[in-house]
Amino acid sequence: MTRKQIFEQILKKKSFLCLGLDPELKLLPQHLLREEHPVFEFNRGIISQTHDLVIAYKPNLAFYECLGIPGWKQLEMTVSHIRKNYPDILIIADAKRGDIGNTARKYAEAFFSQLPCDAITVAPYMGSDSVRPFLEYPGKWVILLALTSNPGADDFQTPARDDRESLFETVLRKSVQWGTPDNMMYVVGATRASMLQKVRNIVPAHFLLIPGIGAQGGDLREVAGNGFNDHCGLIVNSSRSILYAGSGLTFAESAREKAREIQQDMAGLLRERGLGLNQ
Amino acid sequence: MTRKQIFEQILKKKSFLCLGLDPELKLLPQHLLREEHPVFEFNRGIISQTHDLVIAYKPNLAFYECLGIPGWKQLEMTVSHIRKNYPDILIIADAKRGDIGNTARKYAEAFFSQLPCDAITVAPYMGSDSVRPFLEYPGKWVILLALTSNPGADDFQTPARDDRESLFETVLRKSVQWGTPDNMMYVVGATRASMLQKVRNIVPAHFLLIPGIGAQGGDLREVAGNGFNDHCGLIVNSSRSILYAGSGLTFAESAREKAREIQQDMAGLLRERGLGLNQ
Repeated sequence: MTRKQIFEQILKKKSFLCLGLDPELKLLPQHLLREEHPVFEFNRGIISQTHDLVIAYKPNLAFYECLGIPGWKQLEMTVSHIRKNYPDILIIADAKRGDIGNTARKYAEAFFSQLPCDAITVAPYMGSDSVRPFLEYPGKWVILLALTSNPGADDFQTPARDDRESLFETVLRKSVQWGTPDNMMYVVGATRASMLQKVRNIVPAHFLLIPGIGAQGGDLREVAGNGFNDHCGLIVNSSRSILYAGSGLTFAESAREKAREIQQDMAGLLRERGLGLNQ
Repeated sequence: MTRKQIFEQILKKKSFLCLGLDPELKLLPQHLLREEHPVFEFNRGIISQTHDLVIAYKPNLAFYECLGIPGWKQLEMTVSHIRKNYPDILIIADAKRGDIGNTARKYAEAFFSQLPCDAITVAPYMGSDSVRPFLEYPGKWVILLALTSNPGADDFQTPARDDRESLFETVLRKSVQWGTPDNMMYVVGATRASMLQKVRNIVPAHFLLIPGIGAQGGDLREVAGNGFNDHCGLIVNSSRSILYAGSGLTFAESAREKAREIQQDMAGLLRERGLGLNQ
């Protein structure tokens, strides 16, 4: 999927919303637990009610791996279902993988061939040869962790180094040379909207994947103010606040309401910025 | 598995060898490809010929994930097979996971409950709350990436920061406060044996998992000289040089010969250090 295609989706749907598909068995509506594939049925319900409001779905691998083989099975079913029915929607494997070159190559196979995802989140700690194998797939994306939304980000990512720059800035500065704005994006936590300006100084053109809106407390207007570029440049994720907006038989309709609310806010922000005026 | 039990294994087997179970379909002996579970049959053969020479097996997840569901199935079969037949051998899930707290909890479930592994490799980039959930499992181990063996380690891990310490030293210094030598180990690349002294200054008591011996070119004597502590303190991994020492019908016997060669070197080094004299 090209950068242009992503931007077209944004204009068409007046949305830059990514929905994290992180199903937890103990939070699923009771009636789904009787199904053979409760996680897939949950995802299918959520997808049926949100596909016109989101530009990306982002399954986090942990929520599937913890179920063993049935988890992988339902992940495969979910990815296939999206790919088949909504080919325009970006599928992000939130896997945060990172390993030496020959191993990274296997992970690339896993997520770009075995599973037909469009993008994978990758951890930067092991450096360029742990990232490059993913960049060899035309039309696929690496989304590199830069600044994460969790408290632990302050352990290594944010402390200033030698009075000049923090690790997350070094990561951005070095890694922009590995790919291009057409095959790399960055994860930047929305709980750190003030740091978005620093990020934009280094990577003005790249798309940023912003987690942390909703349950984690990030502010959408602040994120847009500091993060927008001329092609939007933002993909903002929400997971729990949408997935579990309701429960019971109408869980998917409740998720739609919540997603619609966020999409409307996004439409307003895009309008204010002058993006999507003619759509 | 306790630190004492690991040390007992080392003394009993006169070995601190970990064998990486990283099966690649294209490198497997031809006759195994006719089997329903070629990867498992390969692993089973290798294990049958090496279990008395190694103290740990380390499947790297990438080599299973790239096969999809059959890959996970054969990983499960492999882990169960080791757990059932060789309960004293440490099983390390080389997964290099790292995610925010509630997600890390799911990964811990995946590798410590769903799969009965003893240890998991974890990436430090996201900080303490991405590591702590793994430490809540008694008898289980986090093996945190500190200094890796690949060229990309020089992108972020090794450059000196503010004239004092490199990122890998910061990672060691901060993370020793998260756990203890009884539930944490560190990955330190053998291709950087000279840096082992720096590592030992910060973590004298912890076990270090050392990849990079063999195919990646690390030197065992140098590693032992700089890395040994009074309880050995080293688990040295080799993967490809053992797994693919031979091919054809006698692949497992060839693997045994290569593993035996390394184990003999290790026995010598342990003797020189005065470890395991009475065994």
